[in-house]
Amino acid sequence: MSGGEKRSAAPTAAILVVGTELTWGLTCESNSVMLSRWLSERGITVVAAQKTPDEIGLIASAIEGFMDSTDIIIITGGLGSTHDDVTREALAGALKAPLVPDEAALSIIAEHAPDGADSDSFIRQAYLPKGTAAILPEAGIAPGIVAETKGTLIFSLPGVPREMEMMLERVEKELLARGKTKGRPLVERAGLIGISEPEAARLIAPVLEEHPEITVNIIAKPDEISLTLIAPSGGESAASGMERAFARILEQLGETVFSARGESLPEVVGALLRQGGLTLATAESITAGQIGSLVATVPGSSDYLKGGVIAYANDVKTGLLGVEEAVLERAGAVSSETAAAMAEGARQALGADIGLSVTGIAGPGGVAPEKPVGLVYTGLAAAAGTETFRHIHRGDRAGMQLKTAATALNCLRRYLLDREGKSDG
Amino acid sequence: MSGGEKRSAAPTAAILVVGTELTWGLTCESNSVMLSRWLSERGITVVAAQKTPDEIGLIASAIEGFMDSTDIIIITGGLGSTHDDVTREALAGALKAPLVPDEAALSIIAEHAPDGADSDSFIRQAYLPKGTAAILPEAGIAPGIVAETKGTLIFSLPGVPREMEMMLERVEKELLARGKTKGRPLVERAGLIGISEPEAARLIAPVLEEHPEITVNIIAKPDEISLTLIAPSGGESAASGMERAFARILEQLGETVFSARGESLPEVVGALLRQGGLTLATAESITAGQIGSLVATVPGSSDYLKGGVIAYANDVKTGLLGVEEAVLERAGAVSSETAAAMAEGARQALGADIGLSVTGIAGPGGVAPEKPVGLVYTGLAAAAGTETFRHIHRGDRAGMQLKTAATALNCLRRYLLDREGKSDG
Repeated sequence: MSGGEKRSAAPTAAILVVGTELTWGLTCESNSVMLSRWLSERGITVVAAQKTPDEIGLIASAIEGFMDSTDIIIITGGLGSTHDDVTREALAGALKAPLVPDEAALSIIAEHAPDGADSDSFIRQAYLPKGTAAILPEAGIAPGIVAETKGTLIFSLPGVPREMEMMLERVEKELLARGKTKGRPLVERAGLIGISEPEAARLIAPVLEEHPEITVNIIAKPDEISLTLIAPSGGESAASGMERAFARILEQLGETVFSARGESLPEVVGALLRQGGLTLATAESITAGQIGSLVATVPGSSDYLKGGVIAYANDVKTGLLGVEEAVLERAGAVSSETAAAMAEGARQALGADIGLSVTGIAGPGGVAPEKPVGLVYTGLAAAAGTETFRHIHRGDRAGMQLKTAATALNCLRRYLLDREGKSDG
Repeated sequence: MSGGEKRSAAPTAAILVVGTELTWGLTCESNSVMLSRWLSERGITVVAAQKTPDEIGLIASAIEGFMDSTDIIIITGGLGSTHDDVTREALAGALKAPLVPDEAALSIIAEHAPDGADSDSFIRQAYLPKGTAAILPEAGIAPGIVAETKGTLIFSLPGVPREMEMMLERVEKELLARGKTKGRPLVERAGLIGISEPEAARLIAPVLEEHPEITVNIIAKPDEISLTLIAPSGGESAASGMERAFARILEQLGETVFSARGESLPEVVGALLRQGGLTLATAESITAGQIGSLVATVPGSSDYLKGGVIAYANDVKTGLLGVEEAVLERAGAVSSETAAAMAEGARQALGADIGLSVTGIAGPGGVAPEKPVGLVYTGLAAAAGTETFRHIHRGDRAGMQLKTAATALNCLRRYLLDREGKSDG
């Protein structure tokens, strides 16, 4: 399910990301993703996002092509001081304008260029195509550029993501001033786990049928399904329509929604632990520490994460976690009994309120007819008792390990929600 | 430092990645990165890699634009059976050819379409622009398409990465048959750690001056620096030139090279542990399990990874790892003494040959004047004794945690290399 089926009269934009390392396929870039989202959220249709090498001719002809077909062009990269930074020259070529020095940009460079730097190569950065305006940098040295030609508004921004993002405020002002955007449309996002993509689509379909103004996008990742709704901005009735639709969608999806305000799963779990005044210890076999490291991505997580035991070998399961040899022999390392004993062991050994364990088969070895690759048991031990969960995950080794870690955090989330519900009632 | 400064007479290619979810900025894609690299390694210059929404008009006009300016076009995505898959229609429009059924593609679809599927929408996939050829799929159902027009060779491939990659063998055959590639040029890669990007560039500069035929690219990531060399293919003398240059570059970079054959750092460390018949236990504070989970990304790692202790809270450091309270009080949790005691504790508690520990300050809390954010101590305990290392890492919280984990693995790698050198001598 994806948007863009109706060709609207919205302004159009092209994104041009400059760098030979990109067209060599040596590195990924995220600027085009960030800008695509930023523009889409402002009601602007991105018709192309193109990577181009550091070559004047290729950059200039890409700009010329997009000048004929789009309302807005945003270029990132190639504004630095080294000899392969040629976006200024390419833009000057496309605009058929000479490069002339900008006084304000010159004084920033004079002030901030590092001592001993080749001053000529730094001063190059203050030369902009005649008739364009500088966007003075709050970070870094290179100014951005705003140009307008044949009804197309062109922005040339630095390639360093942070420096680029700091200039977007100015870009937004220019777009608003020229009526290219009415501001941000209504956007809602939800993170789902424990549901398949087709099932999520099926559950929300009736709501979307009643709200044709809302476009929806569903993306499946190993550790979550992300759902985005966009409706055009348009006063109070649009806002209340979106609010109603989103509330009904959240109701339809129920407990599979872990986040309706953009938080990550570790943030949600962390907030619930903090709220309950509870501490956590992990006991990880198949994930070998990934649950702990996900929990610790959140600043302040030391308030509720005591730590854990990575119990990859069976003698660590018996030694540090106190799993009985008899359990391992009878039920096997990948079993509900072992998951329960690991979770209880972690809770006890680390003196935590909750023990969370996983044991499973990541493959390629360790497989038996009744124990396929991807079989995972999760254990959750608390004062009130111990629960276990059985899942079968698909995917490559890394995807399966990540999915196992996220699923365990989701078991913990649902337990904490349930507990909270009970203490409220 | 990046390549592409000389405009060569090499064949040119454009990549077109189709999907509205991409131009909405809702998801990243890796097909353009994979294809850019694949083409570059075959001596083909990628002049543009563009994301385009699922709209017939936009896809067709992008194809038409690239038809006028490049030798090769590779399109991915939009070949499926749902109504927003419109690449076939767009390609037919650009080629001004009607869609006609392909017999071989029809029979594959008849055989493999799921029971109960809407057969009309599946049969659509077997309709190709007249005058083009099908690339029959080994996986999936949708055929790819080869077209030739005005001297430009066009390939339309599925968007699912695995299905796309399976069709590249056929793409290579077509390119070779038409003289668009001479096959793969000489490519060498190295993974570096414990060196800065400018320092690596400085060390290899003299070798590159003597080998102007070699283009080099250096990319810095939190956990490694990746170095790529490409030289045009051309018989034995080119091969021996590349071999000499690469050998001298490896010599210049010395022990900072962890991999010269494409292995990951966890793979290299795993192979060294296996070779030495040694087992590993981790004791992780700041990384909270990331070292263990990196080691466990390698299939078969259970042969040498016993497990570890995630010692986020101080009472876990004293409890499970046996760090003395007096050490924590005197030196602090982030100190050389604590790192040493944690590594020794992990070695002992898990019965491993080597204990590897990290303790550090990820921020924003826990900072003191003499203990800034990013300060990390690594401890390595083995039968012969215990060493510690002090580093200061920069970056955001996630980047710093990853860098800490990679640096600890590098300390282990250098210890294992050193030990091997001694036992050889």
